[in-house]
Amino acid sequence: MMYFEDYELGQTLESGEYCVTRDEVIDFARKFDPQDMHLDDAAAAANPVFGRLSASGMHTMAMTSRMFVDQARISGHRPVAGLGLTDMRLFEPVYPDDTLSLRTTVVALRRSTSRPDCGIVNLSLEAINQHGRVVLRYISALLIQARSPL
Amino acid sequence: MMYFEDYELGQTLESGEYCVTRDEVIDFARKFDPQDMHLDDAAAAANPVFGRLSASGMHTMAMTSRMFVDQARISGHRPVAGLGLTDMRLFEPVYPDDTLSLRTTVVALRRSTSRPDCGIVNLSLEAINQHGRVVLRYISALLIQARSPL
Repeated sequence: MMYFEDYELGQTLESGEYCVTRDEVIDFARKFDPQDMHLDDAAAAANPVFGRLSASGMHTMAMTSRMFVDQARISGHRPVAGLGLTDMRLFEPVYPDDTLSLRTTVVALRRSTSRPDCGIVNLSLEAINQHGRVVLRYISALLIQARSPL
Repeated sequence: MMYFEDYELGQTLESGEYCVTRDEVIDFARKFDPQDMHLDDAAAAANPVFGRLSASGMHTMAMTSRMFVDQARISGHRPVAGLGLTDMRLFEPVYPDDTLSLRTTVVALRRSTSRPDCGIVNLSLEAINQHGRVVLRYISALLIQARSPL
């Protein structure tokens, strides 16, 4: 298990593999983001940005979150709580049959004022496709147990 | 259809109804956020923050996104593109059988420098439960067609 004191600014970790399936793209979009470019091949082909059926950005966030839960198990991240996320940007479309992986980087560290037994770790989470391109990034703020109280 | 010039700072719109089901909470968590407090009643009961089975924060974001797509159809929001989102915070747990609604508020407006035919509208999206409590908030940045170029 990683305590707050074990994190260092700039630490990175790469992990995971998420195979994006056409069925999941359509199923997610139907439930949570029912727009034509995520549901219908002809409409997607007519869209100058996407060109073909692509995953909802919310779906790509959810896939990234899944890779993070898996990475946390392996690496020993044990957040007491997620405090929120910020600065989510989409850089490239995600298509069926893409394979995504995850790169996390520690971008900020501070002790918590309200929880002297904890620190706050800001992690940049980047989803990267099989061409090595970052498709999505967001910053996740996590409350992490400290070994020693402040 | 709403053009950039039709948006005003502080404008709000309330809409939608999303019934949170136990089956969907578990199905989403299994795929995208497989942590015990979203999957297992006994583990959830032992968690001092949640007390019982609760939805993944990523799931609550996705439900909010769905209510926004539905609101956009009714209200005439027609984003050219979503530019990302920021400042996502979770305020209260979301439980099976909760009913969520959506409140959007225009919190910032500016012309786009790279797209003189468009403006950028920042909307605060708040998911509100049946007790009138805000459970989640994030800011969505949307590229919106302007009636007149800059």
